[in-house]
Amino acid sequence: MKISVEEEQPLFDIRTESEKLFSGLAAMSAGEIGVTREAYGQGEQEALDLFKSYALKFDLEVELDAAANLVVTLPGTHPDKPCIACGSHLDSVPQGGNFDGAAGIVAGLLCLVQMRREGFTPQQNIKVMAFRCEESAWFGKPYIGSSALLGLLSTLDMEAYHRSGQIKLFEAMAKSGADVERIQNGEILINPKSIGAYIELHIEQGPVMISRNLPTAIVTGIRGAIRHRRITCLGQAGHSGTVPRWLRQDAFFATAELISTLDEHWRVLLERGLDLVITSGTVATNAKVHAMTRIPDEVSFSFEIRSQSVDALEAFYHLMQTECNNIAKNRRVKFQFDRKLYTAPARISDAWIEHLKKKSEMLDFPSETIPSGAGHDAAVFANFGIPTAMIFVRNDKGSHNPEESMEIDDFIKGTELLYHTLKEPV
Amino acid sequence: MKISVEEEQPLFDIRTESEKLFSGLAAMSAGEIGVTREAYGQGEQEALDLFKSYALKFDLEVELDAAANLVVTLPGTHPDKPCIACGSHLDSVPQGGNFDGAAGIVAGLLCLVQMRREGFTPQQNIKVMAFRCEESAWFGKPYIGSSALLGLLSTLDMEAYHRSGQIKLFEAMAKSGADVERIQNGEILINPKSIGAYIELHIEQGPVMISRNLPTAIVTGIRGAIRHRRITCLGQAGHSGTVPRWLRQDAFFATAELISTLDEHWRVLLERGLDLVITSGTVATNAKVHAMTRIPDEVSFSFEIRSQSVDALEAFYHLMQTECNNIAKNRRVKFQFDRKLYTAPARISDAWIEHLKKKSEMLDFPSETIPSGAGHDAAVFANFGIPTAMIFVRNDKGSHNPEESMEIDDFIKGTELLYHTLKEPV
Repeated sequence: MKISVEEEQPLFDIRTESEKLFSGLAAMSAGEIGVTREAYGQGEQEALDLFKSYALKFDLEVELDAAANLVVTLPGTHPDKPCIACGSHLDSVPQGGNFDGAAGIVAGLLCLVQMRREGFTPQQNIKVMAFRCEESAWFGKPYIGSSALLGLLSTLDMEAYHRSGQIKLFEAMAKSGADVERIQNGEILINPKSIGAYIELHIEQGPVMISRNLPTAIVTGIRGAIRHRRITCLGQAGHSGTVPRWLRQDAFFATAELISTLDEHWRVLLERGLDLVITSGTVATNAKVHAMTRIPDEVSFSFEIRSQSVDALEAFYHLMQTECNNIAKNRRVKFQFDRKLYTAPARISDAWIEHLKKKSEMLDFPSETIPSGAGHDAAVFANFGIPTAMIFVRNDKGSHNPEESMEIDDFIKGTELLYHTLKEPV
Repeated sequence: MKISVEEEQPLFDIRTESEKLFSGLAAMSAGEIGVTREAYGQGEQEALDLFKSYALKFDLEVELDAAANLVVTLPGTHPDKPCIACGSHLDSVPQGGNFDGAAGIVAGLLCLVQMRREGFTPQQNIKVMAFRCEESAWFGKPYIGSSALLGLLSTLDMEAYHRSGQIKLFEAMAKSGADVERIQNGEILINPKSIGAYIELHIEQGPVMISRNLPTAIVTGIRGAIRHRRITCLGQAGHSGTVPRWLRQDAFFATAELISTLDEHWRVLLERGLDLVITSGTVATNAKVHAMTRIPDEVSFSFEIRSQSVDALEAFYHLMQTECNNIAKNRRVKFQFDRKLYTAPARISDAWIEHLKKKSEMLDFPSETIPSGAGHDAAVFANFGIPTAMIFVRNDKGSHNPEESMEIDDFIKGTELLYHTLKEPV
């Protein structure tokens, strides 16, 4: 890390410190498969305690907010000015990897420790926010800790059961020390104007940076989604040997035509520069009646469109409906849709993107940008209107699995970029 | 029916007689849903007894062959000449229709009765063969009665269990009076040279004759098939939001492209005149791991090609493999195939097709031809080298279901065509 350390201090080596923190985390949360840091549970709490004692050791201020998230502060000379916050989440998915979430907290802590050791005192406070329960795997909904802080949870959300069916969210939160009554009332637990910006460092959870050879990247936005859990194509069953092509109403051939047609639209729209991914994660004929020699009369499939652009989401959704109508007419089938699910994209601050690009160039890092396909606590801040930015660190083998793997060299680069942007914010 | 009846005889009305026979059959085999004539069971035996007593009433010769099929004979003046046989099957599928199989036997019987009543004595014997156990629904394999007669059953076939798991085929056959020992030895129970031709009247089990407005049609051949119960497309799983199109290895998008591409080949080849139907009756992502937000790494599907032409079967199969290879290369997926299943097409005698066309024209019936997509006992005779033909009678709402519905007017036309071709064979 290209940071000058005053000579009289004992050697503080970012590499050694980060490896110590990550291996400490892994040791306490490793199970038979991968690591598990259960939200509002043991693994998450142990991670919180580790980070808390690390921060205290370096004379940083430590508190739990009213949602029981950990907040570490390097006090500034003008604490009334809106603070600069960085952070990420403490929990992991069950049997997940060690870096998803933790990387952003470790990076933030090391930046604050480094500033403290340098004797650097910022104007505004600089904070690390370590959120609980970002993963939807635990209570069905993501971003619980950051949403609680911003008053975004409903009574219904709070009644959701843990995946084990043993405990409700509000009970689990109360056990961890959150002020459940205020959260249930939808109270905003922090003055949003007290946060000047939120910067999240996170591992990339897709394969783009590996493929493009980017140790760090600047996130342009967090993709929103339009989804149907289940679209059903209904045709007409028939004997596979006796019904000629012109009399068929084959639900699978119709579905295959839909998917192929949409794939071709996708290809063309990408060439025109749209941000877009489309996926059908599930497909099935009706197992109660399907057979090798029976023309299928029913095929169900999920369909998801993701984009950083609301316009692209809506335009592709309209295109999908249009192609369904065309195919339904030509092939005499019907497409039935369940409830349309919508998640808004999150906008990243343009000023912060430019700032991160300049800092990257200064450090001789690539200044490439990529979208975030996965959701993050950053989306909660961005959609609340708080200037938000994200730094991605290269990570191999995806995320939400034990194989997740980030190189410490890449992590140090990401931390360095975070350090300089926290020290000299927009 | 345009047949002159001698005036001194009591009125014999084909319509009344056929309605009586069909309603008698329906009454004895109707269950809660549809009719059930269990192979080597009660429904099949009762149908056999009904036909037997009907034949005896009109002074026709009756016997059970060594496979316990019913054979009704109108003796000719030259019984040593190869006979002309018609017929079909006695059994039905569980909860099936009343006409599948029975139509061919009723038609044959009425033709023989009519000849007897006219005092017509043919040169060669004319026979009606009423086969047992044509439907694969009972013991897993079709055409048991006709295959037994021609020595085509293996010991393994004979060991097959009834769908109930309660009784083996050889036991059920023995109970019905079949000579199980000779059948198990693969003995041919009839001199194949004693059969000059086999003509089967059957309801159409597809929708073509309804759509083309044909009361009767002449069958050109019985489609064979190449099948895979399970082809598996293997790709790479990934987060639906984070993996861009150029890095995807989506097993469902690959499968959809395969099906769409083959559908287009099918369309083009039909325009070039090939006989071809293709079907994927089952498709599914792996339910243990699939999710709306997970790029699917595994899609399994069945695939079936049917044609009257061996060349068309093999050519399309090769085309399918070629497209699998192309798509596998472009999309970095793999296609894995289970065992290739082959059923040979059955050739219908060209001379008989021409003969049936001429007789149809003589009767002012359409002389249109269609392929048989479903299998029939006729396929066993044809593949044994015995000249074989088939007459289809129009039938609404498919077959193998209780909705199956044939108009008696159409049946009478089919019977009339059968009558004239039996009386004046090729």
